Amino acid sequence: MTLPLRDELKGLKPYGAPQLDVAVRLNTNENSYALPEPVAAAVEKALTGVLKDLNRYPDRDAKALRADLAAYLGHGLGEANVWAANGSNEVQQQLLQAFGGPGRRALGFTPSYSMHPLLCAGTGTGWIPAKRGPDFDLGPGEAVAQVREHRPDVVFLCSPNNPTGTALQPDVIEAVANEATGMVIVDEAYAEFARPGTPSALALLGRYPRLVVTRTMSKAFAFAGGRVGYLAAGPAVVDAMLLVRLPYHLSSLTQAAARAAVGQAPALLATVDAIKEQRDRIVAELRRDGLTVADSDANFVLFGRFDDQSAVWRALLDRGVLVRDVGLAGWLRVTAGTPEETDAFLRAIREVL
Amino acid sequence: MTLPLRDELKGLKPYGAPQLDVAVRLNTNENSYALPEPVAAAVEKALTGVLKDLNRYPDRDAKALRADLAAYLGHGLGEANVWAANGSNEVQQQLLQAFGGPGRRALGFTPSYSMHPLLCAGTGTGWIPAKRGPDFDLGPGEAVAQVREHRPDVVFLCSPNNPTGTALQPDVIEAVANEATGMVIVDEAYAEFARPGTPSALALLGRYPRLVVTRTMSKAFAFAGGRVGYLAAGPAVVDAMLLVRLPYHLSSLTQAAARAAVGQAPALLATVDAIKEQRDRIVAELRRDGLTVADSDANFVLFGRFDDQSAVWRALLDRGVLVRDVGLAGWLRVTAGTPEETDAFLRAIREVL
Repeated sequence: MTLPLRDELKGLKPYGAPQLDVAVRLNTNENSYALPEPVAAAVEKALTGVLKDLNRYPDRDAKALRADLAAYLGHGLGEANVWAANGSNEVQQQLLQAFGGPGRRALGFTPSYSMHPLLCAGTGTGWIPAKRGPDFDLGPGEAVAQVREHRPDVVFLCSPNNPTGTALQPDVIEAVANEATGMVIVDEAYAEFARPGTPSALALLGRYPRLVVTRTMSKAFAFAGGRVGYLAAGPAVVDAMLLVRLPYHLSSLTQAAARAAVGQAPALLATVDAIKEQRDRIVAELRRDGLTVADSDANFVLFGRFDDQSAVWRALLDRGVLVRDVGLAGWLRVTAGTPEETDAFLRAIREVL
Repeated sequence: MTLPLRDELKGLKPYGAPQLDVAVRLNTNENSYALPEPVAAAVEKALTGVLKDLNRYPDRDAKALRADLAAYLGHGLGEANVWAANGSNEVQQQLLQAFGGPGRRALGFTPSYSMHPLLCAGTGTGWIPAKRGPDFDLGPGEAVAQVREHRPDVVFLCSPNNPTGTALQPDVIEAVANEATGMVIVDEAYAEFARPGTPSALALLGRYPRLVVTRTMSKAFAFAGGRVGYLAAGPAVVDAMLLVRLPYHLSSLTQAAARAAVGQAPALLATVDAIKEQRDRIVAELRRDGLTVADSDANFVLFGRFDDQSAVWRALLDRGVLVRDVGLAGWLRVTAGTPEETDAFLRAIREVL
């Protein structure tokens, strides 16, 4: 008995990196540091506080959380500029439901976050894989030329880009925003890890009403298990999200836990500098070892080139270190975690080389 | 500056009942009873237990929770038969992404759960509003005739039906399952409140591989704020969900809290009998007052008929009682809660009449 599955899903495998029980897990760009004790205590207290009303639906619009996230972002943003959902995947899915969908097309500059085409498939949005330069770079000229050629309804820009790690210069984002007739989504999941002098696209929101910046609490905030992503944009974008969101999409537990964590942002983000230090160390040491390494503004490093990156991936796993084979021939991606994890990774890769 | 919103969304208002701060809230079919103290303690302990790993992504497949939910459902079901998401809205959206979507159509027997057509709109699935009988009844003959006429890709059956309250007889579900060439989704959000002698469609799953039963923890489980819905079906349906779900859609907090609650199912479900008693009392007393009342297998009651149901809704609200105007001319829906809430509702409606 075959089910009447949609044709485009037939034969596909579920998305996702293997969830393996390995000592050193550097494959999904999690934050290797657990919530600091005061933050965990604040989250615990907030969760306990909502249990007595768990029989009631949550605030459907998550207004208090959105106000807190806006205050964290700064740039004069308020609750009306911010929308939150269960991970930035859901935020981006909602954006595609409102501004993409059947008969419309989204463009992204590949290689980039592998969920963008999958979110397009899930929402019936056509996908246009545009190109980056040979070193995964993207300049304003080549970005604009491809947007002009395809005239997509949605453009995804990923900055810092996953899996390559490098942030876009603001002139690229501005050039695309000036050219595009549809929405421009800047995926800034890793923004907090950017190197000095790498401004956020948040600063551009006031001038581009079709510009959207998406963020997540999964990385710098060490909140991957809490599943909170959000966006900042003009209020009309948030109004559109209200039309496509599932009612009560964000649980009372999620809203309470996220508010408590955002309220402790300075304590939570204290690990960011330590992670950036390990990231820069990985880049420097791998280059010293003769590997090719992409500049990274994120909490991960793309390195290569290998004749057979899956053999290297397997050899690292045999040594207890799990990295990510993102399906980019010749390259692997490793998350920057604790100093001890960096030690273990560098030791393993040197054994393998 | 107008955003390039999809045409079918233009001019729409966000879905949802008004969230008003009123003494007696009987408008969204929440469970009026808070989690019993031992259940709240178990949930609290479970949440505390996952905080130390909140920097890590959750189990992407929520296997332990699915096994727990399968054990609760019984009928010989296991983890491979069950899928869970953030509310049954998300479960049904995922079903439409896999088995509906652009170029396909879903049929429901109206009036029914108002999210079904909205979920279709959000997934690009065509919507066919089929008809019920004059008393909101649905027999096998008229159900099959409409399925035969339209040959939809998905049929929604809602049992007990929302907003009318009445469950379907198994022969209706079997007749539709025999006739339908697509998927048949039985929305059993209110199943735990059914009157004696009303079997669940779970008993039919073994014989119909395209049959899916969806459930929620929002109602009988008093877990509306926790946002957990789930489905039971053949393993191939669950495999299809893995292709369309957003990775890590269900947070560690949600998985832990839900497992703790399901583990305390007998204590949680202790309020169900008390709620059914109030439901039956509302039906009996409103009929005694001369109103027309639909038979209810749920935790709510549909009553009428009024020349202007919104005037009655407003008059009840003025008396501190919030019920639901579901947009069905002449009818209102009231949730069955505590004895005191029933007292307040009956007092108010008698003043209004």
